[in-house]
Amino acid sequence: MDLLKKTIEEEGVVLSPSVLKVDGFLNHKIDPILLDEIGKEFAGAFRNLGITKVLTIESGGIVPAFTTALYLNVPVVFAKKAEPSTMRNPKTCRVHSFTKNTDYTICIEQNTIHEGDRVLFIDDFLANGQAYLGIKKLVEDCHARLVASGFCIEKAWQPGHSILKQDGFPFKVLASIRHMSPEEGISWNYDTAETE
Amino acid sequence: MDLLKKTIEEEGVVLSPSVLKVDGFLNHKIDPILLDEIGKEFAGAFRNLGITKVLTIESGGIVPAFTTALYLNVPVVFAKKAEPSTMRNPKTCRVHSFTKNTDYTICIEQNTIHEGDRVLFIDDFLANGQAYLGIKKLVEDCHARLVASGFCIEKAWQPGHSILKQDGFPFKVLASIRHMSPEEGISWNYDTAETE
Repeated sequence: MDLLKKTIEEEGVVLSPSVLKVDGFLNHKIDPILLDEIGKEFAGAFRNLGITKVLTIESGGIVPAFTTALYLNVPVVFAKKAEPSTMRNPKTCRVHSFTKNTDYTICIEQNTIHEGDRVLFIDDFLANGQAYLGIKKLVEDCHARLVASGFCIEKAWQPGHSILKQDGFPFKVLASIRHMSPEEGISWNYDTAETE
Repeated sequence: MDLLKKTIEEEGVVLSPSVLKVDGFLNHKIDPILLDEIGKEFAGAFRNLGITKVLTIESGGIVPAFTTALYLNVPVVFAKKAEPSTMRNPKTCRVHSFTKNTDYTICIEQNTIHEGDRVLFIDDFLANGQAYLGIKKLVEDCHARLVASGFCIEKAWQPGHSILKQDGFPFKVLASIRHMSPEEGISWNYDTAETE
């Protein structure tokens, strides 16, 4: 997706070979036009899959998941990273973050995802695929089906892409980074399809 | 705002005289049509104030702030509740939550709000006004101006409304609850203007 790649090149900051700072447009300060376009792109890719819910994890995934849901005209659920006091029947799953080297719990209210729901997972980054695996388990615990996933940015050298590919469900990456460093900047994956 | 009040009456759950569970449509599972309408309503109310940024606090305020920003065609910033490792020049402020009886830190990257910015604060709830006071301090620390605020729901018997009114800046509440209890449900504030 050219607009996202252009924005990353102009406003993203490569802090290290594994950390890309995108808080100027994607997950702290947000460009509403860009996020609207991202939602349109994901919705277009998955329009024929009979999606009934979009699911994401707070808080980086909330806006792209919301705009996707708006274009698909289905509800969006965002999994919490802590169990709110008002939650009555939480479904939880532990997720390991390699980026932050810590574990966290993701949590949804049981009745937000129903048996028979066809769920689309949207997130800001695909790296090690651990958030995807946690979401898949939560969805299965609710007797629903995770039918597709969409990621704004992937770090293609990390194992997430292979984990998704092995599962065999459709997924879409809008900007696939092959390699990055503070000195050389970003090189894109042009030779692999962005929609799998 | 009739659509919001109708949704609260149909899907909200009054857990106690001070706790309203809205996670079926506002801050966990989200109805995109409702949130789009909320953004349209806030944007309409504040369209003539020369707003340059919308600001909120993760994660309950993110979607209403985003839809408002989309209609105003300005960037939205969401203050983090923990300082991300990628943040280089954080501005922080401690906020007390009476609801959860705990303190938390809100945090924005300094360069997301600039001198001269005219900031609109959007949040899901107005209760004790502590989040508003923290946001106001952050905005002033950035040499910008908080010019208006919008809240989806207020608990009108708590001090937030008076704090806002005393400050004298325009603010809008979409659904003002006068009183609620698990036994009697919700009674609305009809006799005060919803736009101050």
